[in-house]
Amino acid sequence: MNKRSVFELNDVKLDNNTLLLHESLFHNANGYIGVRSAFEEGYPDAYKTIRGQYINGFYDFKEAKQAENLYGLVQEKQTMLNVADTQSINIYFDEEPFSMFTGKVLQSRRWVDVEQGVTGRYVAWCSPLGKELEITIIRMASFHQLSLFTIEYQIKSGNFSGDIMIESQHSGNVSNFFDPSDPRTADEDEQYLTPMSCNIQYGTSYITSITSKSNLEVCSCVKNFLSGETERQFIIGDNAARCQMVTSTQKGGTVKLIKYSVFADSLRVEDCKAYAAAEMKKALSISMQELYQYQEDYLAEYWKNCDVEIQGDDALDIALKYSLFQLMQTASKDEYGNIAAKGLSGEGYEGQYFWDSEMYVQPFFTVTNPQISRNLISNRYEALEMAKLNARILGHEKGALYPWRTIMGKECSGYFPAGSAQYHINGDIAYSVIAYYLATDDEAFMHEQGTEIIFETARLWMDVGIFKCDGFHINAVTGPDEYTCLVNNNYYTNVLAQYHLRWAVKLYERFVKMAEFREMISRIKLMPEEVEGFRNAADKMVLPYDEKLKINPQDDSFLQKKIWDIETIPKENFPLLLHYHPLYLYRHQICKQADTVLAHFILEDTQSIETIRNSFDYYEKITTHDSSLSKSIFCIMASKLGMEDKAFVYFGNSLNLDLMDHQKNTKDGLHIANMGGNYLAIVYGFGGFRLKESGIFFAPTLPAKWTSYKFHIRYRNSLINVEVFRDQCSFYLEDGTPQEITVYGKPYLLENLLTIKIEGENGEV
Amino acid sequence: MNKRSVFELNDVKLDNNTLLLHESLFHNANGYIGVRSAFEEGYPDAYKTIRGQYINGFYDFKEAKQAENLYGLVQEKQTMLNVADTQSINIYFDEEPFSMFTGKVLQSRRWVDVEQGVTGRYVAWCSPLGKELEITIIRMASFHQLSLFTIEYQIKSGNFSGDIMIESQHSGNVSNFFDPSDPRTADEDEQYLTPMSCNIQYGTSYITSITSKSNLEVCSCVKNFLSGETERQFIIGDNAARCQMVTSTQKGGTVKLIKYSVFADSLRVEDCKAYAAAEMKKALSISMQELYQYQEDYLAEYWKNCDVEIQGDDALDIALKYSLFQLMQTASKDEYGNIAAKGLSGEGYEGQYFWDSEMYVQPFFTVTNPQISRNLISNRYEALEMAKLNARILGHEKGALYPWRTIMGKECSGYFPAGSAQYHINGDIAYSVIAYYLATDDEAFMHEQGTEIIFETARLWMDVGIFKCDGFHINAVTGPDEYTCLVNNNYYTNVLAQYHLRWAVKLYERFVKMAEFREMISRIKLMPEEVEGFRNAADKMVLPYDEKLKINPQDDSFLQKKIWDIETIPKENFPLLLHYHPLYLYRHQICKQADTVLAHFILEDTQSIETIRNSFDYYEKITTHDSSLSKSIFCIMASKLGMEDKAFVYFGNSLNLDLMDHQKNTKDGLHIANMGGNYLAIVYGFGGFRLKESGIFFAPTLPAKWTSYKFHIRYRNSLINVEVFRDQCSFYLEDGTPQEITVYGKPYLLENLLTIKIEGENGEV
Repeated sequence: MNKRSVFELNDVKLDNNTLLLHESLFHNANGYIGVRSAFEEGYPDAYKTIRGQYINGFYDFKEAKQAENLYGLVQEKQTMLNVADTQSINIYFDEEPFSMFTGKVLQSRRWVDVEQGVTGRYVAWCSPLGKELEITIIRMASFHQLSLFTIEYQIKSGNFSGDIMIESQHSGNVSNFFDPSDPRTADEDEQYLTPMSCNIQYGTSYITSITSKSNLEVCSCVKNFLSGETERQFIIGDNAARCQMVTSTQKGGTVKLIKYSVFADSLRVEDCKAYAAAEMKKALSISMQELYQYQEDYLAEYWKNCDVEIQGDDALDIALKYSLFQLMQTASKDEYGNIAAKGLSGEGYEGQYFWDSEMYVQPFFTVTNPQISRNLISNRYEALEMAKLNARILGHEKGALYPWRTIMGKECSGYFPAGSAQYHINGDIAYSVIAYYLATDDEAFMHEQGTEIIFETARLWMDVGIFKCDGFHINAVTGPDEYTCLVNNNYYTNVLAQYHLRWAVKLYERFVKMAEFREMISRIKLMPEEVEGFRNAADKMVLPYDEKLKINPQDDSFLQKKIWDIETIPKENFPLLLHYHPLYLYRHQICKQADTVLAHFILEDTQSIETIRNSFDYYEKITTHDSSLSKSIFCIMASKLGMEDKAFVYFGNSLNLDLMDHQKNTKDGLHIANMGGNYLAIVYGFGGFRLKESGIFFAPTLPAKWTSYKFHIRYRNSLINVEVFRDQCSFYLEDGTPQEITVYGKPYLLENLLTIKIEGENGEV
Repeated sequence: MNKRSVFELNDVKLDNNTLLLHESLFHNANGYIGVRSAFEEGYPDAYKTIRGQYINGFYDFKEAKQAENLYGLVQEKQTMLNVADTQSINIYFDEEPFSMFTGKVLQSRRWVDVEQGVTGRYVAWCSPLGKELEITIIRMASFHQLSLFTIEYQIKSGNFSGDIMIESQHSGNVSNFFDPSDPRTADEDEQYLTPMSCNIQYGTSYITSITSKSNLEVCSCVKNFLSGETERQFIIGDNAARCQMVTSTQKGGTVKLIKYSVFADSLRVEDCKAYAAAEMKKALSISMQELYQYQEDYLAEYWKNCDVEIQGDDALDIALKYSLFQLMQTASKDEYGNIAAKGLSGEGYEGQYFWDSEMYVQPFFTVTNPQISRNLISNRYEALEMAKLNARILGHEKGALYPWRTIMGKECSGYFPAGSAQYHINGDIAYSVIAYYLATDDEAFMHEQGTEIIFETARLWMDVGIFKCDGFHINAVTGPDEYTCLVNNNYYTNVLAQYHLRWAVKLYERFVKMAEFREMISRIKLMPEEVEGFRNAADKMVLPYDEKLKINPQDDSFLQKKIWDIETIPKENFPLLLHYHPLYLYRHQICKQADTVLAHFILEDTQSIETIRNSFDYYEKITTHDSSLSKSIFCIMASKLGMEDKAFVYFGNSLNLDLMDHQKNTKDGLHIANMGGNYLAIVYGFGGFRLKESGIFFAPTLPAKWTSYKFHIRYRNSLINVEVFRDQCSFYLEDGTPQEITVYGKPYLLENLLTIKIEGENGEV
């Protein structure tokens, strides 16, 4: 990474909405722990705060009462927990407390440095009594040591000489955010975690808590170091430990505080407290400088694999890097977690995992850091037995059906027509496994986990579908677009199921003679007749097509519905789901997001370019993009179809969705799938990249406003650097063995550097 | 009524299931109050009891949390309340308490007398210490005075001489039934009613309670009279009053107790306590004998209008009379109430009103006691403004949409795909208004209320429907069959909407010149263009028809679904809704109840008899009759189609549904719609009766096992007695002016007595 790698905001606004937004934007995470960036010293009493610290995959069960119960409906959900508060720190200068809400803020700044992997806050402050101070706070969730979160204060005195008292808190009295006035968040303060012990050992505070229903344990421990410390006392009580430290400064002097927090949970380790103690010891065994260096080294390797750079538009460049950094912050580094819809940045969607992982984020990791995709697939593999049980609940005798939303593997959809009915999740997961296989050729993993997932999920299509005279139908399911529910032959679902079934056949035929494969198919009792059934269903799959419009209708009856001109809808009525009854939405041709258009992206070879173009034009008019998963896909397809200006507008909108809080709910957490979509938009959109069985493809175009851009693709054992200029694009093999690549439809062998001239709109050599 | 009018059971079983069932079967009600027949003296501690007393239309709001909330979904329901306990009475013979669970029951009997309008319990009992007693208990909910419920004890001593202490209770500490182990009932004891006062005035106890959310008040008062009373004391406390009375008896002597309970509620009166006091005074102003006589007189008039009698099958005869008596017990006598799905006999469906009223019960009242239909329609008219608001919630700019289930007019459906989406409720209500008009020619009522309901509900079809090239489509609604939800062009819905719209046009044209009508249409701003729209939509209404099967498919895509052979389903898996996920049901051709078959019954002239026959055959194979609203309709249609034996089987099954507890849930209350269906089954089924614009029609057949049967029809100002024998049927004008009637397709003028010979299967003169 050569360019500026810092996303920063100066003159921090102190209104509550901005602070809540910043808690998300500047949160720290490493795939294991996530800490929202609340002010350490807190806000005034009247302010709301979502002051959370989370652990990926750590959950409790929560009652999910149905207003009217039916067989098999979800009765409890899983929810990600706020596990402890280790970020609270109050500072008193001769008893005058530091707060940006009192005195005068002379200068302020918040930032995230995506190369160093830290966030920062800088405040030049004059206290009500006239003390001048500069405070710099650096926070880090360590990638080197996943259990570790650090906060470092540098307090520089201007005109102040005297005592500084610091109270660093560690509290087990935490609960998830609730807001009775917002129907989308919890409306009552539910006690999920019960602190069991709080004590001090060798100057480290330990708090151990257990969940109320899931029977999990979490331990957090905290240690503080203050320069020039003269006094220290711990106040323990009410499941919290306050460490009060005193130091002093002279005018122009500097004081430093480092606060280490370490977490351990019983999903991953047996003795949480012992593990936390060992991890704390490990963290303290090296200096803070070394920890920062490890962070940078770790990220250097990450960026080497995935760095994307835009020349000619610094704002978009850093926005894009911000996105990719968040993907790294978010993705679980072990199989106990996955990627929550809001990552570890907030409590929206209760920390649950959706298809977002497979269709928006994994495509990024698969071609940049495939070992992360592998972990994510393993997380699904671990949940395969529960997916089988889920299929039984829904009446299927064979196969597995992954839950639409989950943490530990059980379904959490409270409203099944827009939840469990989204059977395409099975296809999405299979698609991501196939993509991983295509990108890595990791046959061993396919034998261990990949093919079993593909077969068990393929089986479900056979049970849900039905052969009628004109083909294989999949009825009563919901596609990605939740503004239409419970339909027959959703195009996205069916075309994906077709692809899924064909790959099941292909993998079976490819591996059938191998012993480790035969062991698995015998264990899951997969018979050759069943595989024949897969082939037959795929061949006969119904893919709705309208002769008159020459498009793929979203489902069998989509075109029968009322047209609803988006232009006539008052702006304040978006997103529509918050302003219209679902029945009203279901009765109209109106889309929350890309559905058929997404299908045309991921499986572009199934339809002619004319059908894809007609469909794009048709659906674009009726798509509200009320989902954050939509614009990136429209960007890709606009780019594919030669609508460069349109693609560029979609790209900018998509990239700034959180940074500019377009959906007004980033306070509840970042839209992580959208961040993956941003990568897809530039690489698959402008770069024209595709990963297929026949290899990798590029068809780059350069947006008019840019000078150039580059991106990286890891394919098999090679790392390819792609750079796109106005009149040429270059492919450089940074690492690994030569690879065949296709550029603008022509095959090349990439051995070292390949430069191709761009001529005309669609690019030609 | 000439025959035995008592349904009785001897040797009362004392297992808990039987007792709960009997609480429903022998409940007392008069359309205003309902009292479940728990034993006055209670059951052993381990027994469950649904010891409820209810007031029609009296409700509280109850939270209805959605597991996942969407715009416009119901957040609270209404629930009918258990208002007080006035039925508890304990008797001590020289301190030995009476209980059927101790000592020895020598003889026992429970009965309901549908002519006298009372229920009874007789017990010949030998106490553990050998006292022999006969106790007869008669309970009555008075039709003459709706606020009044009485219990009369006659205690006859065999070998006992000594003191009898009677403790008669009156308690405000009541709550609705809950059972954490049954997902279909409330799972916690929620306190809806708070007793505000409990006191004694002039020997009468008064308890006044208020609801927690609906802000309603109810007052109950109780007075006891004991023969030979020597002592009396009241014990008041904890919102309850216990009246302890002492009397004595000699061997062979008789003691009598009468307990009067009177109820008043703030829906109907301003000062509940004053009203209750006045009503108590009124009740006490005449003797019990007179009260019994009034009850019998009232019912004599009722039976005169509706009596149905079967010769040759006493069991079916009394079962049918039992049904008709329950309809009378159940139906509100004022516009503050309607007909709850379980009447006033239990808490199933929370006392809410459904289409059951209009399509199953009103057809009975409309042709027997039309003033009750009129009240029921008025209850809907009172809720018209709320139905308009409901339409707005569902996105409709014009018109009214009645809630699928409600008490006070707001929607209570917790699961809208099988609730609010049943837009046919609008057509059902319109249908019932039209039927009332056809039967009574009550034009004044049409001007006051009827047409306004019809127009406002008709408007909704225009807003929900859509003209496409091939016709007028109604999308994303649910028909009566809840095993298929959210479909396009449900045949029942569409054909009913067509009828509804045509009648809207007809009534407009018929009344348009009348001043009182013009005032209304100007008030609701109904324009001639709108009426033209009604006509156009009706003419172009899409009515699904399958050329190959020559049936009306239930909806556009019904025949695309999987066939599921009912024979292969394990018996214990019925009703399917308790054993299969809705998505599984939605994906199969399986019906909970008559849907298209019901449409063919109520609008038989829309299709050829061949289509109706083919459809019957088709749907019969895939209908589970999991709904209690189904078999009566299949009986009618089997009879129409000449399948007499089949019709007879359906009839018997339907008639005994509650008496034999076929659905294993009669404990939660009687299936009132089914009881209406039983009337329809004999009169519309075997009697071949139809009420149409062109008059009334008969085509009687006599089931092979019967000697004869008769029924009554009130049409316009006349009462017609129809008697059907093996070889002839007779029509006798009991009352009113001559009427034209059609019998076996031939018109007659009924002036006095008309006898028609039955020849051949379909009957001919």
